[in-house]
Amino acid sequence: MTKNETVPGHFMATESAQALDVFATAVRQDVDVADLAGSTAFYTIARGSSDAAANILSYEFMRELGVPMTSLPPSVFSLGKGVSLAGSAAIIVSQSGASDDLVRSAVGAKGAGAKVVAITNQPDSPVEAQSDCIVPIGAGPEKAVPATKTVCGSIGAGQAILSAMSSDFQNRAHRDAKKLAGLSTQFEQANRLQSALLRARHVYVIGRDTGYGAAIETALKLKECVAIHAEAYSASEVLHGPLQLATNPLMVLILDTGTAETQDSLDQAEARFEKEDCDVVRIRVSDFGIDLETPAASAALLLAAVYPIILNTALALGYDPDTPATLSKVTQTT
Amino acid sequence: MTKNETVPGHFMATESAQALDVFATAVRQDVDVADLAGSTAFYTIARGSSDAAANILSYEFMRELGVPMTSLPPSVFSLGKGVSLAGSAAIIVSQSGASDDLVRSAVGAKGAGAKVVAITNQPDSPVEAQSDCIVPIGAGPEKAVPATKTVCGSIGAGQAILSAMSSDFQNRAHRDAKKLAGLSTQFEQANRLQSALLRARHVYVIGRDTGYGAAIETALKLKECVAIHAEAYSASEVLHGPLQLATNPLMVLILDTGTAETQDSLDQAEARFEKEDCDVVRIRVSDFGIDLETPAASAALLLAAVYPIILNTALALGYDPDTPATLSKVTQTT
Repeated sequence: MTKNETVPGHFMATESAQALDVFATAVRQDVDVADLAGSTAFYTIARGSSDAAANILSYEFMRELGVPMTSLPPSVFSLGKGVSLAGSAAIIVSQSGASDDLVRSAVGAKGAGAKVVAITNQPDSPVEAQSDCIVPIGAGPEKAVPATKTVCGSIGAGQAILSAMSSDFQNRAHRDAKKLAGLSTQFEQANRLQSALLRARHVYVIGRDTGYGAAIETALKLKECVAIHAEAYSASEVLHGPLQLATNPLMVLILDTGTAETQDSLDQAEARFEKEDCDVVRIRVSDFGIDLETPAASAALLLAAVYPIILNTALALGYDPDTPATLSKVTQTT
Repeated sequence: MTKNETVPGHFMATESAQALDVFATAVRQDVDVADLAGSTAFYTIARGSSDAAANILSYEFMRELGVPMTSLPPSVFSLGKGVSLAGSAAIIVSQSGASDDLVRSAVGAKGAGAKVVAITNQPDSPVEAQSDCIVPIGAGPEKAVPATKTVCGSIGAGQAILSAMSSDFQNRAHRDAKKLAGLSTQFEQANRLQSALLRARHVYVIGRDTGYGAAIETALKLKECVAIHAEAYSASEVLHGPLQLATNPLMVLILDTGTAETQDSLDQAEARFEKEDCDVVRIRVSDFGIDLETPAASAALLLAAVYPIILNTALALGYDPDTPATLSKVTQTT
């Protein structure tokens, strides 16, 4: 271990700073997904941060391909007898590619007739061994317990799959990747966001479309790194029962991908929570001085921008996110 | 309004007490779902409590039919251009059958080639008008803002669909319905659970399989009725990053359907949170002196038992769950 590596948060700081470059490299890789042509449905199978990346990708795939892409719980294969998946593709996202439930899901999905795609960061992993197509995240070793660059890399790997299926999408995705490689993730509201998080005990992270998956990942990281109770909601869902939590002091973080059809919904949520006197911060892709054409790239940018704020909040509160008290890097569950 | 109707929580108390009878009646109805035979995939489209009921049903359908049943966000049709659903069935769960996004989803799913099934409590609703099959919840008017009897009724309506598709399932479901009709939902740990909720500011509600959907609904009701920040997790997912929240005072409610294959996972979660000194309460179907054969019925029972505790907690804290400060009965979102 070098001297730097003993500094709290060193790995998360280093790795999250690489997130957009990892994303851009993952997008621009050539992948062979000929097996996926004609799939009538896509199913994602993943857990934790990888599941958030899968959620982001599901909106992108549905928009581009016009076929459903939904989340199948790993337990369908790891605990249950599985379901028939003839004509479908199963996309398994797993940074380690080693979790037992996902290995069993890969075996089960293949046996059930699906073409299986593995998005992983660990070459020659057990999940890969069971898959028809392999799409590397290519982030290199990730040493911090909280995944950051591999999350953005997973989103990029998904965009590489879509790029191989649609040259029109590929053009847009490659233009976005070029803009994001090397981009600074500093933004004007960063200090305001960090102050709000330091004051907060209850947080809603709100998004829509690919911004919803970014919200899921942000809420998870706030719990994991800062032990703040943050929960993700779609801008629509949150205006039903969950709104009542606003009668407590509640901080609301809105992640805005800039997608035109989501603006009304995000505006409505912002206005409603401000009316309830919540502490509302809205981060927009335009805050970074750019304009993107693919909403999953917008989600990757918002995550890459939020990760350092979460890290700094954790450090200010005396936590070392590289090594959370209760967690290990690979969690084995059923 | 009668004198009783002005007592805080009167409607929620009355309606939640009817939940198991509504469930049992809904299960035993005859429904015509011939159109669904041969569906290669089921998609649920719903929001809020109805989405929790849909989640519960998805595990039951997948186990019984061996085909995937996953959740499709309404925005795919309400904001986006939709996805192809040829050969699939779309099950729309909506107590009112009136929410714009679900009406647009019904129209969109039908146009995309799906057979559309409506589970609703409002005869002649706009969602029903767009559907191929209608399965009534049959709960009668629900006056409290928090849905209770219609949630259990939605689960029952889903079991009626499965019963029409499988006579073996029908036998088990009807035996369970008979046991649940008129059953007392009192249980020994009720006081302990209520005390724990009164002390709690952060709650994880944990389940697995159909117990996970029950956890989603319970967490939603705790937010809506008691303004406690409660979040649902699958017993597996929670042992990854979210575990770190246990470094705060955290109350953990485990909803145990008794399903054999979920026991290891629930045991592991219980032990892990107890090790972190959390306040852990586990409610089992066996606490009610019965044994059930269909896990969705177990989920309905756990909900019917938890609703009165949530109501009493709300009343103790000075809230009137019949009329939450920020909410109305039908929320129109996009």
